[in-house]
Amino acid sequence: MGIEASEKERVSERRRRLTEAMERNGVSAMVIPTADENLSEYVAEHWKTRRALSGFTGSAGTLAVVSAAGSKEGEEAWALWTDSRYYLQAEAQLEGTGIELMRDGEEGVPSVWAWLTEKVKAGGKVSLPWALMSVREWMEAKRGLKGVETETGAYEQMVDEAWMERPGRPTGKVVEYDVRYAGESREQKMERARKRLREEGAEALLTAATDEVAWLLNLRGGDEPYTPTFAGTVLLTQTGYTLYTDHEVAEGIEAKRMAAVKEDLRAWSGGKIAMDINKTPAALRAMVKAANVKMAGSVVGAMKAVKNETEIEDTRRTMETDGVALARHWKWMEETKEEMTEMSVAEKLHELRREAGGAMYKSESFETIAAWREHGAIVHYSATEETNSKIEGEGLLLIDSGGQYLMGTTDVTRTYVRGEVDEETRRDFTLVLKGHIGVAMSRFPKGTAGRELDVIAKQHLWAEGKDYGHGTGHGVGHYLCVHEGPQRIGKKGTVAMEAGMVTSNEPGYYKAGRYGIRHENLTLTVADEKEGWLKMETLTLCPFDAKGVETEMLTREEKAWLKAYHEEIIRRLQPRLTKEEAAWLKEKCEPFLFGQE
Amino acid sequence: MGIEASEKERVSERRRRLTEAMERNGVSAMVIPTADENLSEYVAEHWKTRRALSGFTGSAGTLAVVSAAGSKEGEEAWALWTDSRYYLQAEAQLEGTGIELMRDGEEGVPSVWAWLTEKVKAGGKVSLPWALMSVREWMEAKRGLKGVETETGAYEQMVDEAWMERPGRPTGKVVEYDVRYAGESREQKMERARKRLREEGAEALLTAATDEVAWLLNLRGGDEPYTPTFAGTVLLTQTGYTLYTDHEVAEGIEAKRMAAVKEDLRAWSGGKIAMDINKTPAALRAMVKAANVKMAGSVVGAMKAVKNETEIEDTRRTMETDGVALARHWKWMEETKEEMTEMSVAEKLHELRREAGGAMYKSESFETIAAWREHGAIVHYSATEETNSKIEGEGLLLIDSGGQYLMGTTDVTRTYVRGEVDEETRRDFTLVLKGHIGVAMSRFPKGTAGRELDVIAKQHLWAEGKDYGHGTGHGVGHYLCVHEGPQRIGKKGTVAMEAGMVTSNEPGYYKAGRYGIRHENLTLTVADEKEGWLKMETLTLCPFDAKGVETEMLTREEKAWLKAYHEEIIRRLQPRLTKEEAAWLKEKCEPFLFGQE
Repeated sequence: MGIEASEKERVSERRRRLTEAMERNGVSAMVIPTADENLSEYVAEHWKTRRALSGFTGSAGTLAVVSAAGSKEGEEAWALWTDSRYYLQAEAQLEGTGIELMRDGEEGVPSVWAWLTEKVKAGGKVSLPWALMSVREWMEAKRGLKGVETETGAYEQMVDEAWMERPGRPTGKVVEYDVRYAGESREQKMERARKRLREEGAEALLTAATDEVAWLLNLRGGDEPYTPTFAGTVLLTQTGYTLYTDHEVAEGIEAKRMAAVKEDLRAWSGGKIAMDINKTPAALRAMVKAANVKMAGSVVGAMKAVKNETEIEDTRRTMETDGVALARHWKWMEETKEEMTEMSVAEKLHELRREAGGAMYKSESFETIAAWREHGAIVHYSATEETNSKIEGEGLLLIDSGGQYLMGTTDVTRTYVRGEVDEETRRDFTLVLKGHIGVAMSRFPKGTAGRELDVIAKQHLWAEGKDYGHGTGHGVGHYLCVHEGPQRIGKKGTVAMEAGMVTSNEPGYYKAGRYGIRHENLTLTVADEKEGWLKMETLTLCPFDAKGVETEMLTREEKAWLKAYHEEIIRRLQPRLTKEEAAWLKEKCEPFLFGQE
Repeated sequence: MGIEASEKERVSERRRRLTEAMERNGVSAMVIPTADENLSEYVAEHWKTRRALSGFTGSAGTLAVVSAAGSKEGEEAWALWTDSRYYLQAEAQLEGTGIELMRDGEEGVPSVWAWLTEKVKAGGKVSLPWALMSVREWMEAKRGLKGVETETGAYEQMVDEAWMERPGRPTGKVVEYDVRYAGESREQKMERARKRLREEGAEALLTAATDEVAWLLNLRGGDEPYTPTFAGTVLLTQTGYTLYTDHEVAEGIEAKRMAAVKEDLRAWSGGKIAMDINKTPAALRAMVKAANVKMAGSVVGAMKAVKNETEIEDTRRTMETDGVALARHWKWMEETKEEMTEMSVAEKLHELRREAGGAMYKSESFETIAAWREHGAIVHYSATEETNSKIEGEGLLLIDSGGQYLMGTTDVTRTYVRGEVDEETRRDFTLVLKGHIGVAMSRFPKGTAGRELDVIAKQHLWAEGKDYGHGTGHGVGHYLCVHEGPQRIGKKGTVAMEAGMVTSNEPGYYKAGRYGIRHENLTLTVADEKEGWLKMETLTLCPFDAKGVETEMLTREEKAWLKAYHEEIIRRLQPRLTKEEAAWLKEKCEPFLFGQE
């Protein structure tokens, strides 16, 4: 409690200093998003400004403030927007701060821009951090803000003044990602990208997306713990390229300082530069003359999503390594006499991955979600010292985890049945599994988008009036971001699936206060025997827990898929296990090796 | 042959006269679409200009011509665009005419506008029929045509000069659609529409869509044989409305002549007029000052799609009438000693509907498709004297038909098995049926759009590498158009399903040269027991042909649905059938009354 209180005081002190800085700069209001200058999904400590100024630790949220002098009513006002995953957490963490919680997605909740328009005095000046906003967000802000001025210059300085202990920007060396892992040289990648640009009527390409930069140049970094990327921006032209980064880079690679990108863009006269409206910081786009901007989908993102033969083969091998760790982990959970908690099983899994992966294993690919019983129903649960449950008795244990290996990124969720669970639980477990199998077995004509596959995963739950609120699948990078686009299986999945894409298949079901169920494997989209058709190959190698399955709910085809999948697991993992481990694995798979029907 | 040749001569003579008229008017090129001034799906004879000038009788197509004087190369050129349904037919009908066939949708085929840009001499004048083009089509034309001028005044006159025998515009009285059938008075409908307009920030509404005009004002006409609509346009304001039509209208309704709509729009100064970009003729939109145009979805279309209680109850009753006719028709086909042909079974069905419907039955709701064996694989097959097959021996007979009853519009497809068919045929029949049942049984959260339901219908076919090229479902009007929006089940179905919508459920499978299979019922979307969820109620009452079904391919749930459906058919139709007919019906349904499992 003492610690918490003093953290609250620190946050409050920062906010006081911020409003003072605003006054000095003649700024009426400020918007503080959760973003870095590369618009990354996960940001380094340096960029956790919203957390530092609000005390709210969720992964998504936007803070806004109107100073007393800048407000219509002469009263300072703070508000924080976050989505339904974080309503409860934000409520608790904002308590007593005077920051109003805005529940994004609930009816009647104003947008940040509507709220500012409402609060800021006529002609007031709103400071917008355009380096941290995409072109699309910038356009929305400009459309949404009415009757006020905006300025973009003072943001970083004001934050620095408010947040005295702000950590520095990440440093660390950027290393070469060997072409024997990348499967294609940077020159070849760039040649392909140049050709695509010409086809789209552009001369050049600007990307600030760190995974695109890393993929295109076969480089890797380590700005944050789970993703081997680094802050950098690339300007690719028909004749060369420039990498902008403040990191020290691998030998043989030239780089300019980040500060140079703006000047270079301002001086640009080489024709149209393609940029992605969702991934390009507004501050960079603004440097280019409108006539030279070509808003396009992400050219590099689309290339990166389709894995080459080396990446595919290496991923298959990595899945065996990951599968060994997962099998050992499950066996350990069954046999250990140690006290198990959500945090201890997560830590053990990390250890076993490191052991199985050796030099190939670099880190977890995200913070493991180990969620016991009712914690499983909190979709983005992350155990803390305060919530860390002891795992004892019966119930469902949901573990969503993944590894960054030099030869591939993994992401897998299994729901383990501890002790005996009731029929309703098994029924839900099986409904989710039927959806998972439906996607895994799916065949579809080329041109089919992820949103068309989504309902295959959901239909069995829907039939019982049940549903889940998250997507069914996301793209996965190759020793890169565990979440990537452009494909996704879900309502917003408008991009057609292509052979070579690696995508998660993770339907779920969440019963508040009781349990969470999710079955996640990674899949590879591959050519079907039938010309012009595609199908899915499941990459992940880990048995499902047969104790959760109601066999009589399965169709013949579903059983056949389960049988083939578990046979494949045995075949692929057995050679890498001890005799005792192999026997244990067979026992786990055995209930799925249904006789021929 | 003689007749055909002389028709070809007539067509050729019209084209000669058209190019002369173009010369007199200083027009280099012309575009002749398949459309009327209300952008209707089916057009009256007066508007079949494209057919009259090309000889191509398909329902969709665009003809374009460049005169010798207007062309870059000094050579007259004709081309006709149509889609894959009509490639073969158009090829045959255009043979020897010198009109180039443009296969819409095939790679490398230019758009009409690209073709004209290519052919027309610099500065040439292209005549565009903007009264027959939607605002969207008009925008596409203006974007696509480069380096030429356009004009809009001479189209009708040139067509009249070329097509001497052109039939007049439809006349005929517009009658009142009694409020006891409509379920809501025109005043109430208009009040609701006005409220919606205010919510959308518009003062008024312009609609030229004939089904919207008919629905909004509770009027019906008969401009073409299958749809009880009439050429008319409505300008709805916050205080009143104006109907523009050249028809004689029901007593108590005031109407201005069609010619007045342009003047009234040009003089308009009452604020924003909402209009649908896809349904508003460009010629009307152009009369309104840009500041007064609000492009919106179809306000009336969205209201019309959600049926009221009267419409729903009456549709249920109409389905019983239609079901009686369908049952008698099937029984007749099994028992008759007469020679049966595709045309004779269609004619018989029309007769039986008239008999069953009495004064309520007005017409077929579209031209019946009765397709024997390989004709079934031609999705929009329509038997002619030349193709009319004798139905004898074994095979599949696909009949897609519907009726316009005063109390509702029907649309139903059954695939009948004559004699014995092989296992492959039954397998395909059953795969399509499983898809149909999937949609019929579906439950889904509010907000689910038709494109999400589409894959439920397709997944079983997809699993075997099979597919169909048409949508799975379209909206159906109430004693109005058999095809209406805005909802649809298919790739383009972006509109959320709502309780009260009537939508077809018609997956199919087509094996070229062999057979076509389609199972179509109309469904009503209704509230689910679970708050915030929806489900489907099947409206159509007609047994499936059990001879096509491979029972062991069905799941328990699918069998339960089939059982309940056929029990419902017996319950609802039996009281309206003779004893002998009822016994026959029971026999047809019996194979689906599986014992309790």
